Amino acid sequence: MTASNYFMTPIGFIRSELTDLAEAPMQGSEGGVEAWLDLKPQFAQGLMGIQPGDHLIVLTWLHRAGRDTLQVHPRGRQEAPLKGVFRTRSQDRPNPIGLHEVTVLEEAGDSIKVAPMEAIHGTPLVDIKPVLA
Amino acid sequence: MTASNYFMTPIGFIRSELTDLAEAPMQGSEGGVEAWLDLKPQFAQGLMGIQPGDHLIVLTWLHRAGRDTLQVHPRGRQEAPLKGVFRTRSQDRPNPIGLHEVTVLEEAGDSIKVAPMEAIHGTPLVDIKPVLA
Repeated sequence: MTASNYFMTPIGFIRSELTDLAEAPMQGSEGGVEAWLDLKPQFAQGLMGIQPGDHLIVLTWLHRAGRDTLQVHPRGRQEAPLKGVFRTRSQDRPNPIGLHEVTVLEEAGDSIKVAPMEAIHGTPLVDIKPVLA
Repeated sequence: MTASNYFMTPIGFIRSELTDLAEAPMQGSEGGVEAWLDLKPQFAQGLMGIQPGDHLIVLTWLHRAGRDTLQVHPRGRQEAPLKGVFRTRSQDRPNPIGLHEVTVLEEAGDSIKVAPMEAIHGTPLVDIKPVLA
């Protein structure tokens, strides 16, 4: 396997009213908002068949995260015992992939509107998958 | 953002009796097996706190997948209408990230045993997250 196999291509970006990482909720269920997934035109045909009401898993690349963190105090609470990052949803982790379970609200051309989304405006999208029944 | 921000680091590899992609089940729920997640030593402390019985989401890098596919006949059935890859779990997609929901069976040093896992032996691991309640 060559190193280039591990390069991710952003397929689009999040368009959201959330712009401040410090104010964004930690999880979609904790105050995530309606947000648009704007696909790059060259990837938009991958959306074919997605409809309002669909349940999707959106994978993002948390471009502001630290990648050298292996253990954290969950939710930043210093009194909580340290846990391995793979036991938490901390954004700081070796590969900072965000996982967001959302419902589709609307579709419009190369974009779909979803909720709840806690990732901030400009966060790169790397994959979209259906939730399996 | 520089291109290097999008570079994934394998945190380990799948150890499984499944070695033939053609014979592997399409989803874990369709015949996935018990498999070990072997972490690289430098990432193993990220497992701290993971215990048998935990429900985890394992993200893999499907290194054999094609990356130029945007629409597929679901499950390879030619009679099924074409769908966008983001509406399917096809492994062929711009960023071939596999998503596997598993239960932890056993832990041993830098490795954890999980099931059901449909990814074949040698598949790179890129992230592990808890399932949120």
